[in-house]
Amino acid sequence: MSLPSQTTALRVNHARLMERLFTLADIGAIDGGGCARLALSDEDKAGRDLVVEWMKDLGLSITIDIVGNVVGTWDVGQGSPIMTGSHIDTVRTGGKYDGNYGVLAGLEVIHTCQENNFTPSRPLAVGFFTNEEGSRYAPDMFGSLIYVGGLSVEEALHTIGIDGSQVGEELERIGYLGSSPCPGPSPAAFIELHIEQGPILENEGCTIGVVTGVQGISWQEVTITGQSNHAGTTPMTMRHDPSYVAAAITVFLRDLSRRYSGHQVCTVGKIDLHPNLINVIPARAILTLDVRNTNEEVLKAAETEIGDFLQNLAAQEGVAITSRSLARFEPVTFDDAVIETIERVAHNLNSSHMRLPSGAGHDAQMFARVCPSGMIFVPSINGISHNPAEDTSSADLEMGANVLLHTMLALTESMNS
Amino acid sequence: MSLPSQTTALRVNHARLMERLFTLADIGAIDGGGCARLALSDEDKAGRDLVVEWMKDLGLSITIDIVGNVVGTWDVGQGSPIMTGSHIDTVRTGGKYDGNYGVLAGLEVIHTCQENNFTPSRPLAVGFFTNEEGSRYAPDMFGSLIYVGGLSVEEALHTIGIDGSQVGEELERIGYLGSSPCPGPSPAAFIELHIEQGPILENEGCTIGVVTGVQGISWQEVTITGQSNHAGTTPMTMRHDPSYVAAAITVFLRDLSRRYSGHQVCTVGKIDLHPNLINVIPARAILTLDVRNTNEEVLKAAETEIGDFLQNLAAQEGVAITSRSLARFEPVTFDDAVIETIERVAHNLNSSHMRLPSGAGHDAQMFARVCPSGMIFVPSINGISHNPAEDTSSADLEMGANVLLHTMLALTESMNS
Repeated sequence: MSLPSQTTALRVNHARLMERLFTLADIGAIDGGGCARLALSDEDKAGRDLVVEWMKDLGLSITIDIVGNVVGTWDVGQGSPIMTGSHIDTVRTGGKYDGNYGVLAGLEVIHTCQENNFTPSRPLAVGFFTNEEGSRYAPDMFGSLIYVGGLSVEEALHTIGIDGSQVGEELERIGYLGSSPCPGPSPAAFIELHIEQGPILENEGCTIGVVTGVQGISWQEVTITGQSNHAGTTPMTMRHDPSYVAAAITVFLRDLSRRYSGHQVCTVGKIDLHPNLINVIPARAILTLDVRNTNEEVLKAAETEIGDFLQNLAAQEGVAITSRSLARFEPVTFDDAVIETIERVAHNLNSSHMRLPSGAGHDAQMFARVCPSGMIFVPSINGISHNPAEDTSSADLEMGANVLLHTMLALTESMNS
Repeated sequence: MSLPSQTTALRVNHARLMERLFTLADIGAIDGGGCARLALSDEDKAGRDLVVEWMKDLGLSITIDIVGNVVGTWDVGQGSPIMTGSHIDTVRTGGKYDGNYGVLAGLEVIHTCQENNFTPSRPLAVGFFTNEEGSRYAPDMFGSLIYVGGLSVEEALHTIGIDGSQVGEELERIGYLGSSPCPGPSPAAFIELHIEQGPILENEGCTIGVVTGVQGISWQEVTITGQSNHAGTTPMTMRHDPSYVAAAITVFLRDLSRRYSGHQVCTVGKIDLHPNLINVIPARAILTLDVRNTNEEVLKAAETEIGDFLQNLAAQEGVAITSRSLARFEPVTFDDAVIETIERVAHNLNSSHMRLPSGAGHDAQMFARVCPSGMIFVPSINGISHNPAEDTSSADLEMGANVLLHTMLALTESMNS
């Protein structure tokens, strides 16, 4: 496969991309440069209206499906489209780039082709998918999950949010309860451009992340019930202390992730002791375990080892330990041909690049169920995201969009379906 | 020293002691059989009035000092009194026995002597001391601390409570701003009878605890500041995770207490993570360390070792750790002659007995600054206290009061001052 010669000189209009990013970021702007556009809120509606207007300006044909996913297609050439996209909803204290960058870079790819009078051999499409963040409605990656048939429309429309609102009612209220069915038509390939949301690319001094897959996620909540007692009068040998047990679990997870090395990550982000007083051995501790690995077998092994550890620890310390699963996603592996295409494009554009897995979930992992899929990452400054301080250098944003452009064009030629 | 022969047959009136305990417990009664009589509250006033009435019924001469400590003295014989006593304030969800038992057993000792026409060779006194629990005003052991001159009266009267109230104003309001000066007159000896509030006596199947001293207490609050980040996208090697650091400290304290063994206890009763979310490496953890030992040198060594550990851990994990002292009391050693007297009395009464230190603070430790002092413990069922479920078997309560009776009588003979 070689890039069509007439396209190799194409470059996105960086200023236009930045202007669109900052115009969208004005909607739901919050202090510190961030955005708050929770899914299906008034701010989300205003953001959607703006992006749909831009799609119309580019002459795209627009479909809105029954859960509010919006896809704009440039109907040229033959066959099913090469699709890109992401989301424009944000967390409550989000940044400008998470999701939005991928959607607006997609528009920029089409805009660049159009103004350079280059017509690809098959359609290009840009989508934005409902409630990717999951901050208002569970689960996250909601819209893309339903787009690929992973959740029934009925269940989706009846989903109740953290504020008691219902997805179906909110879609109708903001005018995005569309008529296109779900599952939607599968594209020839799906490619998503996104900020990394982690520190690896910055740390490696690398501009383009070629994403090999998405880590599997295992979330559980562990409840430890011991014996509350006086911190001064209870000898160490007679304690059944949930605080110590929670600490031992946390240290064990660190050790486990070291032993497994590679892409194994473990986090205890939440601990609640009761009664949480300086001079009282707690009666109860509740903590969450976030365990991720790119390899399902390894993730399962970690879960088993953790389960065994909890059981032994309960016996050893004379406490009761129960746990319940809060979420479980298997790892996703992206398509080899897509991965190699991104790598080749980055090389041809003289950009530094490296392969890495995604630690966070993304819409592309849902499309991986139905078509060859992949992702392009650009660095996050200080690895920060879900935060108004989320940022990426202007040069990296530009390179990411150019890699998306040439990856999509290369895929128009190489995909068969 | 031998017990005066005419006293050896004396025994307290167990039914009367229990009646007084349950009558006092009716004031401020809460669900589950407990009491709420926070210091200087209306309930505390009602409790005080009742106990003062009982003191008057026994013909005691009553003094009320400037911070509301009440001492009833049976003015017989010669020299300074053998004093007993404790407190009648409770924590917000307290039990019937903590403090109250020691005060009412003191009245029962005098009542028993009087009705048996036995007149000791020196005065017997019973005190109850203001705000021992420290639940409304800091510090705890407030009244006895001021009685022995450990805190100025001026500072004491201006102390502001958790509800914004002022000690001086509340004393005046409830009619217990007395005229006797502080520091008050030192007794010849001070002996306090109290429930253990721990599980040791029950575990050892022992009725009488001969208290050798009170553990020193070191309380500190430790703040760990790391780098908040995404739990999925941040590799383990690039984390600066306050949650892990808090856990490592908690596990270290357990290890330290094992290595030090003996009476070393360490507790992490309170941990607060920020933002405390399942998928976010926290930015900050705040935890409390409660470290106690009966030996000041060992307690100091523990503090030093903990400080060194925190410093090394901060460097190793790339986090900032600061700590501030919340409380620091040196250990107290009770008087050998008093300890030996209690032991001999328990032996003569055919009661099981053992020496143990107190893990909790008590009024007797303040009196240890000014006169020979000691304490008698009786078992706490399941080691529970500061809880409506606080309980001690009726037989143990009776034996404790008889040990107090004969210890006080023995001390009237053996003390020199």
